[in-house]
Formats: sequence, C-alpha cells, structure tokens
Amino acid sequence: MPLRVLQFGLGPIGQACARLAHSRPDLELVGALDLDPDRVGRDVGEVLGLGAIGAPVRDDAAAALAELQPDVVLHTTISFLDRIEDQLLTCIEAGAHVVSSSEELFWPFARNEAFSRRIDEAARQRGVAVVGTGVNPGFVMDLFPVVLSGVCASVDRVDVSRSVDAGRRRGPLQRKVGAGLTEAEFRAKEAAGGFGHIGMIESARALAAGLGWHDAEFSETFGPHLATADHETEFASVREGDVAGIHQTATVTVDGETRATLTLTMAVGATDEDRVSIAGDPPMEVVVEGGTFGDTATVAAVVNAVPRVAASRPGLRTMLDLPAAAAAPLAEPVAV
Amino acid sequence: MPLRVLQFGLGPIGQACARLAHSRPDLELVGALDLDPDRVGRDVGEVLGLGAIGAPVRDDAAAALAELQPDVVLHTTISFLDRIEDQLLTCIEAGAHVVSSSEELFWPFARNEAFSRRIDEAARQRGVAVVGTGVNPGFVMDLFPVVLSGVCASVDRVDVSRSVDAGRRRGPLQRKVGAGLTEAEFRAKEAAGGFGHIGMIESARALAAGLGWHDAEFSETFGPHLATADHETEFASVREGDVAGIHQTATVTVDGETRATLTLTMAVGATDEDRVSIAGDPPMEVVVEGGTFGDTATVAAVVNAVPRVAASRPGLRTMLDLPAAAAAPLAEPVAV
Repeated sequence: MPLRVLQFGLGPIGQACARLAHSRPDLELVGALDLDPDRVGRDVGEVLGLGAIGAPVRDDAAAALAELQPDVVLHTTISFLDRIEDQLLTCIEAGAHVVSSSEELFWPFARNEAFSRRIDEAARQRGVAVVGTGVNPGFVMDLFPVVLSGVCASVDRVDVSRSVDAGRRRGPLQRKVGAGLTEAEFRAKEAAGGFGHIGMIESARALAAGLGWHDAEFSETFGPHLATADHETEFASVREGDVAGIHQTATVTVDGETRATLTLTMAVGATDEDRVSIAGDPPMEVVVEGGTFGDTATVAAVVNAVPRVAASRPGLRTMLDLPAAAAAPLAEPVAV
Repeated sequence: MPLRVLQFGLGPIGQACARLAHSRPDLELVGALDLDPDRVGRDVGEVLGLGAIGAPVRDDAAAALAELQPDVVLHTTISFLDRIEDQLLTCIEAGAHVVSSSEELFWPFARNEAFSRRIDEAARQRGVAVVGTGVNPGFVMDLFPVVLSGVCASVDRVDVSRSVDAGRRRGPLQRKVGAGLTEAEFRAKEAAGGFGHIGMIESARALAAGLGWHDAEFSETFGPHLATADHETEFASVREGDVAGIHQTATVTVDGETRATLTLTMAVGATDEDRVSIAGDPPMEVVVEGGTFGDTATVAAVVNAVPRVAASRPGLRTMLDLPAAAAAPLAEPVAV
C-alpha cells in the first residue's frame, strides 16, 4: 500500500515535492494545501502541470487533513519556527507524520527549546514523527560529514565548504544573495534584517551533536562576497568590486579550540563545489565536483525522507536519528 | 553507563577494534576471546599494548560470555558465513548484540538464505541485533552511494570505483593481491581458489536493495591488474607486465540494462581514490581524494556502529537499516 501524502504549501519547492511524490509508486499524492486564491479550488494535478488527480487545492488545513487522512504531510511553507508551530500542530493532531523543508526545524532544539518540547510531546502523544530536512541544512554541512565520520576512528576537526554559482541559479536566488548590489546597498539590506541563507547554525549544532561534542560553542559571520570581475547574468549585472553574493560562516569551538568551520559562498561567478575535510584517523577529503544542485536536492531530500519518517519512532526527530533516506524508483520520469 | 564490549578475535583488525573501544568513554572493554595459545590467559590490555584491564584473554566463548555479560560483541574472526554461524549463535544466546567485520555478513541474505533466517530468528528471540560492517563492504561501495542518493530525485545509474595503492599498505595486503606474481602464477593462484577481495557482490546487492531495484541481476569479474612500470616496495618487487594487484568488478543489471558498476583496483602503484558517480537528477560526482584508508576505516566502522546496533530493533540487520554510525570522542588518543 502506498503511503498517502498531502502537500502543505505550493510554492516552487512545494510544487516540485508534490510532483516527485506523485511520480513515486510507493507514495500517493492525495491533496494539497495552499492559501493562494489563484490555486485554491483547482485540481492539484492541474496546478502541478500533471493530469487531474481528482482532489482540489484546499485552504482549510484541519478539515482537509481530517477528510484526506494522509499518512505523511510534506510541509514546505515557511523557514521560521514561530510561524509554523500552528501548521505543524494541526498536522500532528490529525495523526499525520510531517517532513518539512523549514530550515529552522532541521535542528530546532537550541533556537527554541519550548517549541521543540511542545512539538515533541504532541507528536509522541499522537504517535507520529516530525522531521526537518533539505540539502542545506539537512545534508551537505551536517548529515554528510557525520556519515563520513563513521569510518574515522577519531575526528580532530571538520571543515565544510559549499560554494554555489548563483549565476547559474534562478532569479530569486540571485536577488536573495544580493548579486549586483553595491557593498553599501548590501549592508543597508543586511541592517534591515531577514537577509542571507538560513540554517548555518542549525547545521553547526547538528554536526557537533552528531560527533558527540557536548559543551560546544557556536558563532556565525555574514557578509558580501565581492566580485573580482564583471559578470552579466539573465537576472543581474555585477561590476567588479560590487557584490557578487553572500559569504557566511559558522564556527564550532570546544574548550576554546576550533573544531569545525562551515563556509557558504553563494555568488555569481563562484565555483560550484562542496567539500568536506575531516582531520582525523583516517583523514577524509571529500569533494562533490560541481556541487549538489540545491533546488532539486532539497526536493529529493524531503520526499526521500517520507518512508523513513513514517517508520520512525514518534516525536520530534532529526535526520541523524533516521536510517539513510535513499532515492527510490519512479513510475515515470518527472521534471521536479 | 558505558556499553560493555567483548572483543571476539584478536587478529590485527580485532586488536585495533579492541584498542579503539577501550579508548572510548562510552564503551567499556570487558574482555576478549581468541584461540591463539600465545594470547590465551594473558591480560587483554597487555596483549593490546595498553595497561592491564584485569581480564584475561579467553578461549571458552560461551563461558566467557556468561561471565562477562557484554552488551555488544565485536566479532572479527572469519569472512565466511558457514564458518561463523556457531560463533554468532553463541553470542546471541548469551544475549549480546553483535557487530561483525565479516564481509559476507554485511549482506548475507542472497548468499545463504537459510543462515540468514536462522540468525535473524535467534536474534529476535533473544532481543539482540546482529550487523556486519566495514569500509568495503560496509561503506564505500554501498552505504555511501545510498546516502548520496538521498538528495537525488531520481537515479538512473551508479558507478563506484575504489582504487588502492597496495604499495602503501602492509605486506599481507600486497601478498593478498598477488603483487609481483607473473600473470601465469596469478591465474594458477586464482584457480586454486580463495583469492581476491571478498564482498563485491554483497556491496552490489546492498546498493540495489537500498535504491529499491528489485529483480536486479548481479555479475562479477576478477583478474590481474598488470604493472605498466617497475615497482619496488618493502614487500614486493613488481616488473612491468607482471601483476601489480587485482582488478574486480561487480555489475548490477535491471531488465537487461546496466544500472550500477562497482570497480575495485588494489595494486602496487595504483592511485588512492574512491569515486561515486550518480547519473540522476541532480547528478552527483563525489570523490574521496586520497581514498578511504582501509585498515583504520574498517576498525572505525565496526566500533562506531556499536551504539547504533545496541539501540537497533532486534534481528539480523544491515547498516542500511541504522542511523548514521558517527565517530565519537575518545578519552585519549589511540593508534588503532
């Protein structure tokens, strides 16, 4: 019997998740929730560019959940814990497991302990599991180095870098990283808040926990990555010396010693590459040549987690608690 | 409370596992089993080159298990299922979980279904888990690509290569791969049997199962890797055109189509590198630069699995069923 899956949120990532779920014979897409009045009431499959699936997009979460009785909700609405708690509780109360792309939900414990306790208790009572995942956070900077450490007898230090050529990504991402701004405009935008990649500190905390580094301390930096040459893309015009994108770091220290650094560069003209360096016994130097393509990888991470989350011990769980969430065969090819 | 660990087998890998377990504050090395009369009766810690731990090496498995009551046995004796069944059953009957370096135990289901059923039933009845692991099989060619597939929406094909410079490894490995033999000597040794790396087909079967490729078919090749130049090592003298080592492949086909190839080269003068290429969406091209150093990595894989196996659902399980078995802090540095 396929697992019944409900899509919560039909933004670009949500639509792609729903399309992928629909194409998996082990999953059945039974409906979707969204607030956009242009989508509500239309057949979910038609909104996704597939054939009709016989279920309209709904905006009444509790009622739709009660009617459709999904086994698992794919939750792709908002990054921030304080804005998703009600959505998660509605899913939990309906007896549905949740896989979410919310970056803060990947490792919510330190950011909001009370939220984490409430979600964990509600999920345990209802016998369901709640997990956040994605490519970053969720894979490149946290789960991936933790898995690699499994063949290390000891780990002294971990350095992870993810470099993304924003010029090869969609327009929203180029705007998100400030490509084409002057440095002054970038700093003004930064001061206004809500700028930059979310989840660095979540990755750092997950990595430290995965490696058993208790009493670790965490710090972050954020700034512009300045262009060393002119770049023209479909969406942005970047002059040498202006902002090509963002440069973010997170550092883990234990007893005053740097034990891990995470470095993210998302900028027009940057090299597409992920790299994990473990100083340990044995040392591990692992490169994802050409990088891990973020949009597709996040969608895959969410959907591939579904069978593992459905089989998980109830509660607020993390990807570090679950067995490998692998890809699975599709009934037919799909462009996510 | 640390998990009580008993070492079963004190060959080079077993000794290293015991030393690593002893250095982990979350584990307590409570004893060791071995048949070598030069070791039996001596203090385990002294055999390992550590201080005395107050427990002698024993050769009476059932009695030692009953007395020492380990939570987990580290089993590092023999690669072959038909020669370890009694050892495993003795551990299971004593109520101990088992982590084993036996290559065939990593994925025993197809090689010996009856064995697998017997071990699984005994383990379930006694409420313990039995798992085989290591670097290969256990990581590079199976778990690692399966984990990487977790960020792929679809996987068309997986190609894994592991290349090991045998000239930089210990003498037994160089002899094991036939370095310095003529091609005729190599073929005579091959015809005599028991030659080559064990576990290629186990990796291939695990990879196919992990990716949901049911009805997959498997084939293997084995042959010499011939030297293209002269090589002198501490242990072998290899002439151009003679045997530098082994070259083994396993191929997975589904409906007549090649879906995965695993290629292992262990030869004097070969490049140290592991590579996983996933043709899929997104594609993933992942390189372990300098390779994954086999001896240490196998020891690490076995010991790092202990907490996960102790917390596992009972039965004959695999590394694909368990959450990431990460490295953990050591009380003090140890040369494994």
